[in-house]
Amino acid sequence: MTTKATRWLLPDGVDELLPPFAAHLEQLRREILDLYQSWGYELIKTPLIEFLDSLLILPSEELQLSTFTLVDQLSGKSMGVRADISSQAARIDAQVLRRDGITRLCYADSALCTRPRGPLGSRCPHLIGAELYGHGGSDSDAEVIGLLLRTLHSAGIEQPLLALGHNQLCQSLLKAAALPQQLNEKLFSALQNKASADLDLLLNESSLNDPSLNKSAIPAALISVFKALPTLHGDASVLKRARELFAPLSEQLRGELNTALTQLENIAAQLSAQFPAQALYFDLCERRGYDYHTGVIFSAYVSGHGEAIANGGRYDAIGEIFGRPRAATGFDADLKTLLRLSRRDFQRATRIYAPAGGDAALARQVAELRAQGKAGVQGFDADPASARAQGCSALLRQAPGGAWQVETLD
Amino acid sequence: MTTKATRWLLPDGVDELLPPFAAHLEQLRREILDLYQSWGYELIKTPLIEFLDSLLILPSEELQLSTFTLVDQLSGKSMGVRADISSQAARIDAQVLRRDGITRLCYADSALCTRPRGPLGSRCPHLIGAELYGHGGSDSDAEVIGLLLRTLHSAGIEQPLLALGHNQLCQSLLKAAALPQQLNEKLFSALQNKASADLDLLLNESSLNDPSLNKSAIPAALISVFKALPTLHGDASVLKRARELFAPLSEQLRGELNTALTQLENIAAQLSAQFPAQALYFDLCERRGYDYHTGVIFSAYVSGHGEAIANGGRYDAIGEIFGRPRAATGFDADLKTLLRLSRRDFQRATRIYAPAGGDAALARQVAELRAQGKAGVQGFDADPASARAQGCSALLRQAPGGAWQVETLD
Repeated sequence: MTTKATRWLLPDGVDELLPPFAAHLEQLRREILDLYQSWGYELIKTPLIEFLDSLLILPSEELQLSTFTLVDQLSGKSMGVRADISSQAARIDAQVLRRDGITRLCYADSALCTRPRGPLGSRCPHLIGAELYGHGGSDSDAEVIGLLLRTLHSAGIEQPLLALGHNQLCQSLLKAAALPQQLNEKLFSALQNKASADLDLLLNESSLNDPSLNKSAIPAALISVFKALPTLHGDASVLKRARELFAPLSEQLRGELNTALTQLENIAAQLSAQFPAQALYFDLCERRGYDYHTGVIFSAYVSGHGEAIANGGRYDAIGEIFGRPRAATGFDADLKTLLRLSRRDFQRATRIYAPAGGDAALARQVAELRAQGKAGVQGFDADPASARAQGCSALLRQAPGGAWQVETLD
Repeated sequence: MTTKATRWLLPDGVDELLPPFAAHLEQLRREILDLYQSWGYELIKTPLIEFLDSLLILPSEELQLSTFTLVDQLSGKSMGVRADISSQAARIDAQVLRRDGITRLCYADSALCTRPRGPLGSRCPHLIGAELYGHGGSDSDAEVIGLLLRTLHSAGIEQPLLALGHNQLCQSLLKAAALPQQLNEKLFSALQNKASADLDLLLNESSLNDPSLNKSAIPAALISVFKALPTLHGDASVLKRARELFAPLSEQLRGELNTALTQLENIAAQLSAQFPAQALYFDLCERRGYDYHTGVIFSAYVSGHGEAIANGGRYDAIGEIFGRPRAATGFDADLKTLLRLSRRDFQRATRIYAPAGGDAALARQVAELRAQGKAGVQGFDADPASARAQGCSALLRQAPGGAWQVETLD
């Protein structure tokens, strides 16, 4: 029934949900929040706006560029509209709740981004997510990844592609290479893009030995690892290949890298036990989380949708910001994207029309139908055409004895 | 556990909801949205931002001043963050859904205001509301007011004060007086403020006959009505007094005024039949709705809270904006305010701790408890102290036979 020509235009990446899709979103939202609650995750509702210096506490340039800024007319200070909720949740865990033990929080709210995260993304995502604080081991990573899989199952997305990686791998290797900043950034970028030709060029000895870089060559073993890194993606055999590849490296570096691999192995073992049908895809080169992630990172994909539908990972660096160590792992997803990709059916309540001018018996009957979960639509006339126009599939009609009966409309 | 000194400050009028209050808000939100759905109101989810010229379609200066503006980096155009949802719902009804018959819509979402609506108000209200389009009679006003009362009952606010008025009364009287604009505005303002002394001064014959106003005197009968208007508040007897007071006026003006009174009488009769215990308070002088309301207006109050907790009314002027006549009536309320004033109890799910290192039988038991609506918290150790620290009142313990049993913690 939408006539595009007469319709107000919405900004790019901004949408509105009409009936019945808004009701479907609401149903999915409830089921997922009930899931989180049943796993012990406590709901929070973060502020839509905050002062900028409170909002941008995670070291993420992406988040900073995504945040709309406003001037507070009351204080004259700069405020930002939340573009991400996990950073607000981290502030609430560390600075408001201040619990010593493990804390699980969840949320489901709108956010606003200056630009979509990707070409298909919304600028007004409805972010639903869960975060676990105060535990640094793989068990908590496995828990939140398991919860993400169940989130997707709730949306009727039964077979997502689950990609796992570890931000520590690139970081440790780059640190060991100790390249000048400019070259370091180029190498990092080539690794992100799996640009093997660029890597070869950057890593050939003549460029590394360039005297203008004021830097001696990096060990040949390390160069081999950098060159192989973009090929380290696929099933769990990738972890084994990586361990072999790292063998010739120095003991300390090998230790750091193997710690990361062991974490991925532990998580893979737990997930395989819980979700035997779920395929796991490892990618040891690409970073798929936000740029504030520090450990295991993960993303979910579905075929036919070119962007991740959920992202998450470990961001233990949050401790540094608050001057109080606090491990953290979690994920979020745009509920509107999940709804769009959902393959499940949503039920709509039967709508029953109550004609105008009814008696007390009609009012009681309508109240009863409503209590049963049906929609009792109060008519302002007794015309079946009005009932149909208002989406009703039945109307109440008074039988000769005075009783009101539900009559199906053709 | 909150230590104010170490807490990030939030801007004035901005709040965050922590556990368990966010869960209470969620529960109340669900119950109210289920109520709206059972009355046939279809949920919509409006955009958080829109281009300014789409957003500010209702003739409301208040709304314009309340709206935060942003520059769209993608189009360079001005956008606004929604400060009100009813105007967006009206656009969706008229320009997107474009149905001919009666349409009922509802919503529950965050909005953002540059300034709080009143000294106690939030700048980030969680607006919950319902709107009925396509019906101009009192029956639809009575329906939405009834739905507002049930909304408040859902929140455990059983005996609100319900104030009813009619924007047409002042408008017709001022139009009949046909005063020069400046004097008209002064008179309007004095009526709003029920400033009897100012009214007397404005309405004495010498000021009205001032030749500089280039205006002849207004009839004595009209002057009497203006002077009496601020006293026309109280129970339903006010409507009768008003009818007597309007008797000496010209036939046309009396007709307009009596039409408004008849609408209020009809609504009062329907509400008294549905809600016999609900007291009705009439105020024929003050406008309590938004400044775009054109007919019946209403507000709900509770004692001890100096501002309206819900506002609504008829705003048929929406037809003019879209070049398509479309009657409209509805209301909204800040769900956070309703929660704060709520006198009802909210339940919290029992939290049960599952120790680490359990077997498949434990996993099954946890899944079963979760399916029963309990929160099964996965432990990363087996320490009862951790269970308590995570808000668990029980933990699962393996009996000598191998079965897992729920054991209450002291």
